[in-house]
Amino acid sequence: MDFPLAGGSTTVLFLCWEGPMTRGDEAHEHILDQALGLASLEGLAGLSIGRVASAVGLSKSGFYAHFGSKERLQIAILRHASDRFVEQVVAPALKAPRGEPRVIALLRFWEAWAHADFLPGGCPFLVASVELDDQPGPLRELVVQAQADWLDTLAEATRIAIAEGHFHAQVDADQVAYELFSLAYGYHFQARLFPSVDIKTRLHTAIQAVLDRARSTS
Amino acid sequence: MDFPLAGGSTTVLFLCWEGPMTRGDEAHEHILDQALGLASLEGLAGLSIGRVASAVGLSKSGFYAHFGSKERLQIAILRHASDRFVEQVVAPALKAPRGEPRVIALLRFWEAWAHADFLPGGCPFLVASVELDDQPGPLRELVVQAQADWLDTLAEATRIAIAEGHFHAQVDADQVAYELFSLAYGYHFQARLFPSVDIKTRLHTAIQAVLDRARSTS
Repeated sequence: MDFPLAGGSTTVLFLCWEGPMTRGDEAHEHILDQALGLASLEGLAGLSIGRVASAVGLSKSGFYAHFGSKERLQIAILRHASDRFVEQVVAPALKAPRGEPRVIALLRFWEAWAHADFLPGGCPFLVASVELDDQPGPLRELVVQAQADWLDTLAEATRIAIAEGHFHAQVDADQVAYELFSLAYGYHFQARLFPSVDIKTRLHTAIQAVLDRARSTS
Repeated sequence: MDFPLAGGSTTVLFLCWEGPMTRGDEAHEHILDQALGLASLEGLAGLSIGRVASAVGLSKSGFYAHFGSKERLQIAILRHASDRFVEQVVAPALKAPRGEPRVIALLRFWEAWAHADFLPGGCPFLVASVELDDQPGPLRELVVQAQADWLDTLAEATRIAIAEGHFHAQVDADQVAYELFSLAYGYHFQARLFPSVDIKTRLHTAIQAVLDRARSTS
C-alpha cells in the first residue's frame, strides 16, 4: 500500500480557538510542551515537578504558582496532549475528502504524531493508559475520554466511508475502529521494543488488510 | 468464530523442570507470586518493597535476605512472569494439534492469562513494556526478550500451519504474529479502559479475519 506521510502539509486548524494568545498564555503553553515531552518519556506518575521546573527554567515555587499541585499539572498535561492531538491529527485529517481518504489521513497523521519531536517517549495516552487503568480518579477519566474520542473519530470516519459507498454497507464501524486502534497500539510498542525490525511496513500491510475487508464485505 | 476458553484443561507442563521443590523454593515462589500480582497493578518502577514484604508477611530485612535489592526483585519478577507464561500459555497450547488448532490454542490461553486471578492488573509484560521502553538496562533486555519469544512462538505456530497446509504457502508468518500480538495489545488496554464494551467479541472477530486471510491468501 502506498501510505505516505503528508509532505508539506503542516497547517494546523484550531478547532477551539478562544482568541489571541497573551504572553502569559505562551509561557504556559511552553511549560506544558516541555512537561508533555517529559511525561511521554517518564509517565505521569513518575514525573518530577523539580525536573519539569528546571527544564523550563523556573523555581519550584514559581512552578507551583502555575499549577498548584502535581495532580493539577498531570491534568493540565493530559488536556494539553488532547489539544495537540486534535491540532495535529484530527483537524488536518478533516481536510481530506470524506470517506476512505479521510480514514487513511487519520491513520497517517496518527503515525506522524507517534513520532513527533515533542513526544520523545511516544504517545502519552498509551503511556497514561497503562499507568492509570487501575487507578480511579479524574486522571483516569481524562484518559478514558481521550481514548473514547479517538475510537469514535475512527468509527465516525468509517461510517462516512460506508455512506460514501467506499466501504460495504454491512461493515461494523466500531469493529474497524477497534482493529485500527489495536494495530496502532501494536505498532507503538513493537517499534519501541524492536527498533531494528521494520514494524512500519507491518502496520501498513495490516491496515491495508482491514481496509480491503471493509471495501469488500463486513 | 467459536473461540471458547479451555474448560477443564488446567494441567500445566513444566518445560524446565529442575527437580523437586524444597520448602525454601516454595516460599520463594509464593513471594514471587505475590510480588508479580502487585507489579501487574502498580508496575515494576512503582513497586514498593515495603508493600511486597508486608503482603507476604516478611520484615523488610527478611525480604532483603531473599532479593538483595529492588532491581534484583524486579528481575526476579520478570523471570517469574516468563516462567508462568510458559506454564500457562505456551506449554498447554503445545498439546493442541499442529497447525491452525495450535495457533488458536495459543491465543485462547493468552486470553485466559490476561484475566488470571494472580494478575489483577493484567499482563505484566505489557505494563513493563511501557515502563521500560525508554530505559536501557537488564530489565528492558528481559522485557524485549520475553516479547520477542512470544512473537517468535506465534510466528513458528503460523509456519507450522503453513507446512500443514492449513494456511496459504505465501503467508508471511511474522506479519501474522505482529497482527495477532497487536490485537492482543488492543484488547488488553481497551478491555481495561472500557469495561462496559464487549471488547472480547471484537477481539474474536478480528482474530477470525486474520485467520481467514491466512487460510485464503498472503
